[in-house]
Amino acid sequence: MTIHQPPKPGTALWVYAHPRRGSLNDRLFTAGVEALSQRYQVLTSDLHDQRFDPVLSDRDLGDSAGKPGNIAELVGEAYTRGQTPEDVRTEQAKIAAAELLIVQFPLWWYGPPAILKGWFDRVFTSGFAYGDIDPELGLPRRYGDGGLAGRKALIVVTAGEDAKSIGPRGISGDLDSLLFPLTHGVLWYVGIETLDLHVIHDADSLDGSGVDHEIERLRQRVRTVGSEPARRYRRLRDGDYHGTRALREDLLPGRTDLGIHLAAGRDRRPTT
Amino acid sequence: MTIHQPPKPGTALWVYAHPRRGSLNDRLFTAGVEALSQRYQVLTSDLHDQRFDPVLSDRDLGDSAGKPGNIAELVGEAYTRGQTPEDVRTEQAKIAAAELLIVQFPLWWYGPPAILKGWFDRVFTSGFAYGDIDPELGLPRRYGDGGLAGRKALIVVTAGEDAKSIGPRGISGDLDSLLFPLTHGVLWYVGIETLDLHVIHDADSLDGSGVDHEIERLRQRVRTVGSEPARRYRRLRDGDYHGTRALREDLLPGRTDLGIHLAAGRDRRPTT
Repeated sequence: MTIHQPPKPGTALWVYAHPRRGSLNDRLFTAGVEALSQRYQVLTSDLHDQRFDPVLSDRDLGDSAGKPGNIAELVGEAYTRGQTPEDVRTEQAKIAAAELLIVQFPLWWYGPPAILKGWFDRVFTSGFAYGDIDPELGLPRRYGDGGLAGRKALIVVTAGEDAKSIGPRGISGDLDSLLFPLTHGVLWYVGIETLDLHVIHDADSLDGSGVDHEIERLRQRVRTVGSEPARRYRRLRDGDYHGTRALREDLLPGRTDLGIHLAAGRDRRPTT
Repeated sequence: MTIHQPPKPGTALWVYAHPRRGSLNDRLFTAGVEALSQRYQVLTSDLHDQRFDPVLSDRDLGDSAGKPGNIAELVGEAYTRGQTPEDVRTEQAKIAAAELLIVQFPLWWYGPPAILKGWFDRVFTSGFAYGDIDPELGLPRRYGDGGLAGRKALIVVTAGEDAKSIGPRGISGDLDSLLFPLTHGVLWYVGIETLDLHVIHDADSLDGSGVDHEIERLRQRVRTVGSEPARRYRRLRDGDYHGTRALREDLLPGRTDLGIHLAAGRDRRPTT
């Protein structure tokens, strides 16, 4: 498996992280995979069912376990030597094949559950998901140009709060900002474009018809997901940043919200 | 153990989440605990050393494991019945005692490592950290008024990137926003005030004297941490929000960055 391999057209991976059978998430998972299977070959990663271990530790370093140095680089060395643990390699093979990722989870403490966070910590290794150098720029490829470029992701997330509490100026922070570390920091970093979030609000207080409605809404969404435009962030190589660092002063001056990193045309606020 | 118990003055808890002995984080941990011990009785939670399991699952639900319903509420029921697993109870007792929390971790994929995320997922249960009702407001106490009010927290975080890349308008998002789900969504939600972040930038490229400098800088920080003013967010009960939802339009109109949730006087930008 080498970096920058193209995905297999028509293949999708549904990553799912909820511990309980019969839960709202479980029902969404089953219905979503079924609907998606009408258009894609769907691979799944049911992290609880697989008993995926989310803790990155010495066993992820292979022969580099005893060496000093940066842990992400040592994990990359292990990858290059073919010493990545079997459970991680299995996940990497699924990601490599998929042109579309669905990442489904309940919002716990305003972020992904630990089992999903650790899936990224362990599976998105240097050498696999990022780490090679752009020959033109002489810089590591990242932010729109990583090892998994050419793929799209849809986040499906259930939240106990309503649309106002996790909307713009909501008391809990708007969900796009809360999940920026995932959509931009993980996915866009390695080249994966994200679609608009698919949010199930008030997830704890839905009645039977509310659940049915949400299941149908998810079915509809995944049926047309292949033709949706991605919500692109700015590419590092497009020159919007000073070198590799901060957004140029002439772009959206004065703003400090995380929305400044959306590429022009996808922002909902006036641009300069 | 009941909700709203006051901490023990002079007791601190240092929570630490890095897998490698001899790492920069390990050296910071050792030096930090030593310096803090001159002023506090310091409890520690070395999550990797304890082999803490971060995956919330059926065993956290006690007799409610088979019941339908919201998982956080079922975890709370187990807490009320005294069926919280032993490893979680041990952590809760340490938190209950501490007036000061130090939370130290390397920034992995722009957030806490899974083992730390899962420490919050499993340990900050309903009934312990939040969940009772404010008799005046008739609403659950949260955001400045949770079950752990009266405590302060210092985040100590190492980052591979420089201050510009994770500063205001930085390409990776500013660190205060990236960690908002932790400082506001977890800690402030349950009533814990946070101090300004303690960030070790360029953590992967420090030379020997750079490491010595950072160790000394952390020692200095923890020596005076008890007298530092907290960086308070807005309290739900202060009326800055419409009910429990979005910030009132007359406060910082037009702004959508997460900094709007800082209480007046602690914001670095003009207020209305």
